[in-house]
Amino acid sequence: MHITIIGSGNVATHMAAALKNAGHRIIQVYSRDLQHAAMLAYHVGAEAIDDLEAIVPNTDLFIVSVKDDAIVDMVKALAKHQKLIVHTSGSTNLNDLLPFTHKAGVLYPLQTFSKSKEVDFFTVPLCIEGADEAITADLKELAATISNNVYAVNSANRKILHLAAVFACNFPNYLYTVAQQLLASHRMDFNMLKPLILETAQKVQHQAPASVQTGPAVRNDQETMNAHLQMLNNQPQLQEIYTLLSQGIIKNNNGGHGDK
Amino acid sequence: MHITIIGSGNVATHMAAALKNAGHRIIQVYSRDLQHAAMLAYHVGAEAIDDLEAIVPNTDLFIVSVKDDAIVDMVKALAKHQKLIVHTSGSTNLNDLLPFTHKAGVLYPLQTFSKSKEVDFFTVPLCIEGADEAITADLKELAATISNNVYAVNSANRKILHLAAVFACNFPNYLYTVAQQLLASHRMDFNMLKPLILETAQKVQHQAPASVQTGPAVRNDQETMNAHLQMLNNQPQLQEIYTLLSQGIIKNNNGGHGDK
Repeated sequence: MHITIIGSGNVATHMAAALKNAGHRIIQVYSRDLQHAAMLAYHVGAEAIDDLEAIVPNTDLFIVSVKDDAIVDMVKALAKHQKLIVHTSGSTNLNDLLPFTHKAGVLYPLQTFSKSKEVDFFTVPLCIEGADEAITADLKELAATISNNVYAVNSANRKILHLAAVFACNFPNYLYTVAQQLLASHRMDFNMLKPLILETAQKVQHQAPASVQTGPAVRNDQETMNAHLQMLNNQPQLQEIYTLLSQGIIKNNNGGHGDK
Repeated sequence: MHITIIGSGNVATHMAAALKNAGHRIIQVYSRDLQHAAMLAYHVGAEAIDDLEAIVPNTDLFIVSVKDDAIVDMVKALAKHQKLIVHTSGSTNLNDLLPFTHKAGVLYPLQTFSKSKEVDFFTVPLCIEGADEAITADLKELAATISNNVYAVNSANRKILHLAAVFACNFPNYLYTVAQQLLASHRMDFNMLKPLILETAQKVQHQAPASVQTGPAVRNDQETMNAHLQMLNNQPQLQEIYTLLSQGIIKNNNGGHGDK
């Protein structure tokens, strides 16, 4: 396929690279910032542009990977080309695009991307949605060229997925940061915690997370929890987080059991 | 070494197996529950006992891996054998043992263990502490036979580590559970989130977690955060968790920057 990439952020960068590797041709990369466009365009052999008027019409697909609140305006501007337009957002409804074009769809990668870290895109779950069945089928076919995990997901469920991803990725990463800061404040090395972090994520690849919950809360070990709260005495925000998450674990555990 | 294991929980089980694999001889396994003792004893070729009076004296080391509030009583009972006694707890001070024996130490594995999941013990960080330098040296030597990550850590720092481990392991695992439940309540498969969970943990093996923070909070994307809170309308406890953790991310981010 001939593809035009709108945006040059982390998702645009990783998806464009995967598409190029799969044999598609990236025609142009648009960004408001020409330097950003140029960086990505260079990697995927495309032309960099910072002016929507410079878009060439010989493309099959626009992939709009910009901030959520800029998606609709971008679709408005691109609709005149009469080509398929997809966005890559977890939380933007497909319906928001339909007033401007019926050739619309979604290609949402359920992964966390950083520019500095390579990702094997074939492992990335790709959630697709098309404005009609033909578009859905086309997107399924395209998605299958870059990922082994393609799911048809409607807009309502995609929003749930996006919310779940915040709990499964963004919040754990913040808690890693808290742990790292606790260690740093006592001159200990974050390396000590890395095997634990990895094992915790690896465990739930094959077992339900509730069934492998460990720690003082699931044992309802009040003495240890109180001692921990004491240690966080000068960090009331962390105390609140500790209390709330421990309560959640205790409440969950009253319905089941785990390795304590 | 000839070793006696006191306890039959997850830590006792994994550590006993690692010690046996390293060529040490596990003499006896004690548990109040003889069946539990027997299961572990069978795997490591030891005798199972449920009576402290049945302990044989020809051992070099007692490893006490019982609930925190039972450690001191156990050490009291074992001290008469005049052998080295170590506990495996993150939050129990070495000083608590010294009134009963000076041959005391700590062998704290900084990892999450489940009976149903194998762990490569050589990757497990082992934190050691001895009541004197000779004991510390002996424990370091012993620890090096089963782990490639041996750290000398005093009791105060071990408590910090244990607290940090709650943030880095127990709480993220609970958040995985929340994500899984959100998906389940909309008939979606937890498998969709597994690559994201793994990648999030893998990222911080090589980069500081704050530098790879993603999601709506680090972008200060109020619209998405409000939409998420709306979706959690009937789960006030999850709303509270969402708000607190997002505030933490926003606050952290005001000091630095990341991949948004």
